[in-house]
Amino acid sequence: MPEQSPLDLLEGDPFGPHNLPYGVFSTADSPDRRRVGVRIGEYVLDAGAAALALGSPYAKLLDRPSLNPLLAAGRTAWRDVRRALTAWVTVPAHRPDIEPLLHTLPSVTLHLPYEVADYVDFYASEHHATNVGKIFRPDGDALTPNWKHLPIGYHGRSGTVVASGAEVVRPSGQRKAPSDPAPVFGPSVKLDIEAEVGFVVGVPSEQGRPVPLSAFRDHVFGVQLLNDWSARDLQAWEYVPLGPFLGKSFATSVSAWVTPLEALDAARVAPPARDFELLPYLDDSGEDDPGGLDLHLTVDLNGETVSAPPFSTMYWTAAQMLAHMTVNGASLRTGDLYGSGTVSGPAQEQRGSLLELTWNGTEPIGLPSGKRTFLEDGDVVTMTAWAPGPDGTKVGLGEVTGRIAPAVS
Amino acid sequence: MPEQSPLDLLEGDPFGPHNLPYGVFSTADSPDRRRVGVRIGEYVLDAGAAALALGSPYAKLLDRPSLNPLLAAGRTAWRDVRRALTAWVTVPAHRPDIEPLLHTLPSVTLHLPYEVADYVDFYASEHHATNVGKIFRPDGDALTPNWKHLPIGYHGRSGTVVASGAEVVRPSGQRKAPSDPAPVFGPSVKLDIEAEVGFVVGVPSEQGRPVPLSAFRDHVFGVQLLNDWSARDLQAWEYVPLGPFLGKSFATSVSAWVTPLEALDAARVAPPARDFELLPYLDDSGEDDPGGLDLHLTVDLNGETVSAPPFSTMYWTAAQMLAHMTVNGASLRTGDLYGSGTVSGPAQEQRGSLLELTWNGTEPIGLPSGKRTFLEDGDVVTMTAWAPGPDGTKVGLGEVTGRIAPAVS
Repeated sequence: MPEQSPLDLLEGDPFGPHNLPYGVFSTADSPDRRRVGVRIGEYVLDAGAAALALGSPYAKLLDRPSLNPLLAAGRTAWRDVRRALTAWVTVPAHRPDIEPLLHTLPSVTLHLPYEVADYVDFYASEHHATNVGKIFRPDGDALTPNWKHLPIGYHGRSGTVVASGAEVVRPSGQRKAPSDPAPVFGPSVKLDIEAEVGFVVGVPSEQGRPVPLSAFRDHVFGVQLLNDWSARDLQAWEYVPLGPFLGKSFATSVSAWVTPLEALDAARVAPPARDFELLPYLDDSGEDDPGGLDLHLTVDLNGETVSAPPFSTMYWTAAQMLAHMTVNGASLRTGDLYGSGTVSGPAQEQRGSLLELTWNGTEPIGLPSGKRTFLEDGDVVTMTAWAPGPDGTKVGLGEVTGRIAPAVS
Repeated sequence: MPEQSPLDLLEGDPFGPHNLPYGVFSTADSPDRRRVGVRIGEYVLDAGAAALALGSPYAKLLDRPSLNPLLAAGRTAWRDVRRALTAWVTVPAHRPDIEPLLHTLPSVTLHLPYEVADYVDFYASEHHATNVGKIFRPDGDALTPNWKHLPIGYHGRSGTVVASGAEVVRPSGQRKAPSDPAPVFGPSVKLDIEAEVGFVVGVPSEQGRPVPLSAFRDHVFGVQLLNDWSARDLQAWEYVPLGPFLGKSFATSVSAWVTPLEALDAARVAPPARDFELLPYLDDSGEDDPGGLDLHLTVDLNGETVSAPPFSTMYWTAAQMLAHMTVNGASLRTGDLYGSGTVSGPAQEQRGSLLELTWNGTEPIGLPSGKRTFLEDGDVVTMTAWAPGPDGTKVGLGEVTGRIAPAVS
C-alpha cells in the first residue's frame, strides 16, 4: 500500500482544492523568513517555493514575504494564479515537486498576511443596529433616519489590526455610568466581541474617482473573519458626537487566511429586500452579482458555542459598502480592509456580540462554567465560518481567535 | 563686493537656521528621485547629499526618499541631526560644500514627506466645538458631557492625506435637509475647510502599553499645518451615530514641511485653565512642559485673509491627545499623524472654518469678489502660521494650500 500523501484529503474537507486561501507563514528554523502559503487540508503549501520549483511565472507574486504584490496584481492575475495552484495540488504529476513543500499547520507560525492600509468598519446588519440602538438609545428610534439610505461606516485604527492568535490586552480608559457624578478610570468592565466579515482590497483606485458597484470584483480580492474587540463602557462615554474611538482602537483581530472571492462563487445569494428605493450608486437591483454571501459564522467562548450569526441576513452588501466608501472620491489602496460590522441574525442565538447576547449585561448567558456577561481575563474567543462550495462541498474560512490578557497596571 | 550667498539670509527670515523644517523634494531633471530636503530661507538644501559631501554619519537617515528613517530614529538622533544641519548652514567653512546643494524653492516639487500610517483627528478647541454644537445641535447643550473630560477624536482616512498643492476634487454624496422627504445625491454644496495643526509621530510604541504625557517628546517629532477639508452637508446626514466618514475622507491636505518640535521651544505656553479636574493620565498640572504652543495661523481664501486662528487657545494639548489616544493600549507607528481639530479662537475673525465664519452659510462673509459662504470651484485656500522663535525671531510653518476642482460627473 503506498504511503498516504498530504494531498489525499478526506472527503468533504472544507480546505480542499476548491478553497485555497492565502496566508503568510514562517517556520521555526527560519522565523524571520515570511513566505506566502496556501492552505490545503491541514497543510500549508510554500507557494513561492512551489512556483520556483515548477518554473511558474507567478513566482514574482508568490515568492514574497507578504500578499501585497498578489493583491495588487488584479483580477486576471488572481484567477490565473488560482488556476495554477489548483493544478499544483491536484495533478498527480506535480506531487514529487509539491509534497516536499507542504508544512503541517501546527508547525508554522501564521502572520498578518498583508500590510493593512486603511481600516473601515461598517454597521451593515439591520438586526445588530436595531439591537444596539435599543440598548444605547432607548428613548429614540432604534435605527437612525439615515440607516436604510446608506451603509453607515467609520474609520478604525489600522495599526492595531492583528492576526488570529495574538493576545489582546484588556484596555483601560474612561467610563461614566449615567448615575456617576464624574468619569472614572480603569480597565474596561464591558469587554466585548464583534463577529464580522472583513473584505480585503487588492487593486487601488484614483483619488477623486468613485468605484461603482459593478467594479467590486475588480478591486476586492477576498474575505477574512474579523473580531472587532469592543470596550462597551469606554465606547458609551466617548462616542458622541464623533463616533467610536478608544472603545475599538486597542485591537482588531483578523483570520490569518484570506479566502479569495472566487472560492465563494457558490455562496452568492440575494440580500434581504430593501425598504427604501436606493440612490443609483447603491441600487444593486440591476447587478448580475446578487451581492450577498451565504456565510455561516460560529462564535465560541472557551470552546462553547455562544452564537451562530448568518451573514446572508446583512442588509448592505460588500459591493454597496465599497461603492459608498468611494462615492466621495476617497481612493483605495492595496491592503485596505473593511469590516461588515457585527453580523447578527434575527434570532437571539444569532447575535454577534455579547452586548446583544446579554442585552448589555442584564441577561447573562448560561455556560457550563457559569453565567456570563462580558469577557473575563483568560477568555478565549474563536470565530469560524463556512460557506457552500461547488458540488455540495463546504468552503471553510480560517478561524480568528484571541485570548484576553489582564489590563496593564 | 563678493557674490551674495543663498545662506546670507535677510534679517528676520522666518525660515532661518533657527527653524530648519524637513521635507521631501524632487527636481525636474530627476522627477522620480525623491530626497530629504531642509528649508533654509527660500532655498531647499539636499540634506542627504550634504551629509554625504561632509562625511556625516547621518547620511543613513538623510540620504533617503522619505522622512520615515529619521522619524523612527528617536529624540537623540533628532537633536543631533538638527545640530549638524545648523552647523552646515551657518559655519562659513562649510559653504563651498553646501552652496552647490541648494535648490531654489520654485525649482523643486515637494511631496508628502513620510508615509502616513494612522490618521486621527481631534476636536480640541473649545470655541470650535461650542460653535459646531450650537449649529448642529441647536436644541441641546453646545458641548457634549464628555468634552471637558477627554480630548474627543476619531480616525480619518490616511490614504487620502495629500501634500500641500494637491488639487481637491469636490466630493459628491448624499445629503438631506430636515425638510427633504428623502436624501438626494450630488456634489457637496457646503464644502468647507478646517484650519488645524497636525502632529507627526516618529517613534512607535508597543501594543497594550499606554504612552504617558511625559513621553510626548520621545514619540512626536514635529508639526505640520493641516487642512481637514469637510463636506458639511454630507457630514450632517451621515454622522449619527458613528461619526464623520465621507464628509471628511475625500482629502486632507498637509504642509510639505515638517517643523521639528525643537524649533518651537520658544513657543511653549500654558494651555487655558481647565474647568474640571482631569483624570491622572490627562492631568498635566505637574508636567515640566506647559504643553500649549503659541502658533498664529492665518487662513487665506483666494489671497484674502478670512481668519487668524490662535492655537494657544486650544483646550487640550498635543501631549494630552497622545496620552488619550494610547491609554487603551493602542500602539503608535512611525508616520502616525494626528490633527488638533479646527483651531478657533474666541473672536469671530479667529474661527477656523467657513461653517463657523458664516454660521452654516446663514451669515456670508464679505470679500472683494462678493459675499461668500462655502467653497466654490476654483477657490484656492492657503493656510500659513508663525510662532515665536529664539531671541525675538519668528519661526515660519510651511504653508498648506489647495485648489478646488469641479466634481466628477
